Amino acid sequence: MTPEEFRAEAHRLVDFIADYRRDVERHPVMAQVAPGDVRRALPAEPPERGEPFDAILRDVERVIVPGLSHWQHPRFFGYFPSNGLLASVLGDFLSTGLGVLGLSWQSSPALTELEEVACNWARRMLGLSDAWSGVIQDTASTSTLVALLCARERASDFSEARGGLQETGAAPLVVYFSEQAHSSVQKAALLAGFGRAHLRLIPCDAAYAMRPDALAEAMARDVAAGMRPCAVVATTGTTTTTALDPLAPIAAVARAHGVWLHVDAAMAGSAMILPECRWMWDGVESADSLIVNAHKWLGAAFDCTLYFVRDPQHLVRVMSTNPSYLRSSADAEVKNFRDWGIPLGRRFRALKLWCLVREQGVEGLRARLRRDLENARWLEAQVRADRDWRVLAPAPLQTLCVRHAPAGLDGDALDRHTLAWVERVNRSGEAYLTPAMLDGRWMVRVSIGAYPTERAHVDALWTAMRAAAHATDETQAAS
Amino acid sequence: MTPEEFRAEAHRLVDFIADYRRDVERHPVMAQVAPGDVRRALPAEPPERGEPFDAILRDVERVIVPGLSHWQHPRFFGYFPSNGLLASVLGDFLSTGLGVLGLSWQSSPALTELEEVACNWARRMLGLSDAWSGVIQDTASTSTLVALLCARERASDFSEARGGLQETGAAPLVVYFSEQAHSSVQKAALLAGFGRAHLRLIPCDAAYAMRPDALAEAMARDVAAGMRPCAVVATTGTTTTTALDPLAPIAAVARAHGVWLHVDAAMAGSAMILPECRWMWDGVESADSLIVNAHKWLGAAFDCTLYFVRDPQHLVRVMSTNPSYLRSSADAEVKNFRDWGIPLGRRFRALKLWCLVREQGVEGLRARLRRDLENARWLEAQVRADRDWRVLAPAPLQTLCVRHAPAGLDGDALDRHTLAWVERVNRSGEAYLTPAMLDGRWMVRVSIGAYPTERAHVDALWTAMRAAAHATDETQAAS
Ligand SMILES: Cc1ncc(COP(=O)(O)O)c(C=O)c1O
Ligand SMILES: Cc1ncc(COP(=O)(O)O)c(C=O)c1O
Repeated sequence: MTPEEFRAEAHRLVDFIADYRRDVERHPVMAQVAPGDVRRALPAEPPERGEPFDAILRDVERVIVPGLSHWQHPRFFGYFPSNGLLASVLGDFLSTGLGVLGLSWQSSPALTELEEVACNWARRMLGLSDAWSGVIQDTASTSTLVALLCARERASDFSEARGGLQETGAAPLVVYFSEQAHSSVQKAALLAGFGRAHLRLIPCDAAYAMRPDALAEAMARDVAAGMRPCAVVATTGTTTTTALDPLAPIAAVARAHGVWLHVDAAMAGSAMILPECRWMWDGVESADSLIVNAHKWLGAAFDCTLYFVRDPQHLVRVMSTNPSYLRSSADAEVKNFRDWGIPLGRRFRALKLWCLVREQGVEGLRARLRRDLENARWLEAQVRADRDWRVLAPAPLQTLCVRHAPAGLDGDALDRHTLAWVERVNRSGEAYLTPAMLDGRWMVRVSIGAYPTERAHVDALWTAMRAAAHATDETQAAS
Repeated sequence: MTPEEFRAEAHRLVDFIADYRRDVERHPVMAQVAPGDVRRALPAEPPERGEPFDAILRDVERVIVPGLSHWQHPRFFGYFPSNGLLASVLGDFLSTGLGVLGLSWQSSPALTELEEVACNWARRMLGLSDAWSGVIQDTASTSTLVALLCARERASDFSEARGGLQETGAAPLVVYFSEQAHSSVQKAALLAGFGRAHLRLIPCDAAYAMRPDALAEAMARDVAAGMRPCAVVATTGTTTTTALDPLAPIAAVARAHGVWLHVDAAMAGSAMILPECRWMWDGVESADSLIVNAHKWLGAAFDCTLYFVRDPQHLVRVMSTNPSYLRSSADAEVKNFRDWGIPLGRRFRALKLWCLVREQGVEGLRARLRRDLENARWLEAQVRADRDWRVLAPAPLQTLCVRHAPAGLDGDALDRHTLAWVERVNRSGEAYLTPAMLDGRWMVRVSIGAYPTERAHVDALWTAMRAAAHATDETQAAS
């Protein structure tokens, strides 16, 4: 494909994408396909001869689009929103179009320096002090792994340069997080080699937030048993209920034990661009590392996790490699972000964040998030006003945990009812919701904040939820 | 930005990108900026109010483009090529435009199933048996970490479920790779917690390939010392010289010790679409895991590493998480690729690989790689024919290691000369080359294979190299 052929095809593709975004509401939100449908509709063998691009685009329309669940749909209320705002999409197009790579500063200086600029912008927007240095990673999962690796090395006086975690005679290192922490925290701790026996799931209070007293007790117990507290992961905005672990008292416990404090604000971090929300992570300046998924509510096209550290030298010491083929004469004066994370090669991710912030302005980003918070307050009021429905957890942000619990329904029957009505909503294509467990029972998370979602869509959702819940009741009564 | 505003801006951006690719040759290959230039040219504060997109695009032209080293330039001979062919660029645009996420099969079924299809296509193109299952990861660095984590867990009977690497009384696990292995291998082993004391850098033969006899000896020594061989990483196509570790005898040694064999074919893997090159990884079917960077020579837009495993169940056991908010009724019948790697959220990366293969056809991909191999043979002949130049290592593929070594120049003086002339080429903007160390001395890697590179560009490079080397001679003589 020559640049001129590309020009023609790309114009067609742009129209395809613009139409998709404009008309996305026509699609069922959740894909209506069965396992294997997409795979079976496509040839199993790669073509020997090249095909014209419009044949490919026809297959995208025929096979791929019907196989998607539409995250940019105004009635997408599943998981957490992952907004790819259109300005950010343009930034990502630019990144792919330029096709440059960051292996070192020299390998494309603007890639590194724009990342510094964009991370600084993000830092200021979030109200963080200039004691933080930022870098873009792919996901929160990877970033929490990076944080725990740094914690492991700091606590072990950089054992990676000696026997690693296999060093004999060292006190085992222990990692702490709440029982509501995201699954990626446990995964990261296991991958970092701590072992399940050295993970502590700290109990939560009635609001599903980590109990600092229980954290202090757990650490004291481990110290008494000859173990060494290594890291605490606190969450600002847990996945199930957006609970807020109290950072200030947790930081105090961490400090008393010289332990690394990592803050997972993957979702709620976006809200910190609103001054009125910053109380939620009061104490954050005492953390050692911090993550915010700019690819969630904020609107940077996936993948774009902001990773902030207090002491980048530490990070570099754990992550750096310096083979001859990557050295350049500029190295002493510049940042080489390959030493700030796991991958060597890096995309020009800063463009999608920088384009987003410039095109929206801080003001535009704030207005959208406030709209979503108001929509969540409105829905919460509707649910609370209906005696058959329950709001199950505090909703400081834009995610509501609800249950339809008509009189007489409880225990396993209530679980079956919950899963049945949410499945009915999802299969209808009207809206997409994620069920999850809370206190051992199923409930439904309503996560508002897809960028095209307006009040009318939330209203339609509430209608669909009630209809599905009642239809499910009738089904049960009839059977 | 509404879909209609996006349409207008995206059309302009497409023209910008098409022009950039068409005219890329007008730019100096290596960025001519000094550290801090790009950063200082941009505002330090995020804008309060949104800006029109064309203001952003003007800054891209004014500040960003001059700050790039141009990887898609026909006279880019640095590192290894990282080709983003235009069909693949379109596939990536589509991925960003659709903005869907793979957290589970259900969260966007086509994302998972097209990844299965595209990985199967790749497997067939590479001539691998159907005993392999594939998944797309971001980079080789991450993939090698994943492989070593799997090796660690298999060797320790899944110690992550118990005390992890901190289990007392277990024999320390040891990892083996050649002294020519990529820096990412050492980094992965250190991050996985093995510790530098448990890494063995196996000596190489005269062709810079791992010596299987030395590997066997090292393992025997470790076993005698009470340690446990855990994993070998063999490289098909090392970074410095594209040396080929002999997989069949290495696999025999690995098998004798029940050790995990991971093959890093990040660069050379692309060449395996050519039947005449497959001898290079003879024995690969005995490996446990294998990586090929489709984002290098093959032409998939970065990032796109193919990770193949023999036993995905093993991978899933090490990587899986199953919180309630990620479960769906389809889970038993489908692949959930989050359990095949570190990140939870996943981009629709398969599109860029699938579009590449469809638009090029296997035939088209093969023809381009053969062109590059011929260009390398041509340049090798020129260099060998000039008595002042040396070819320093076998060049089975498209990367040549050379030195300008006029009579009387050796030792540190030769090193200074080498670094001086390559710097002169790079600063001229005429071509971009990467110096590296071989046997303790600097030399220059010429890596042919950027997709627009034709014979004339290689010819121009050879002229520029000789001119720079001679100019550097004169400078030294004059000083
Ligand atoms: C042999 C080899 N392995 C691994 C890598 C690392 O690649 P990545 O940037 O995908 O991590 C490279 C990069 O050039 C390489 O040549
Ligand atoms: C609190 C929290 N942490 C981490 C993650 C993982 O995010 P990622 O997909 O970026 O790894 C999520 C995802 O929803 C999350 O809610």
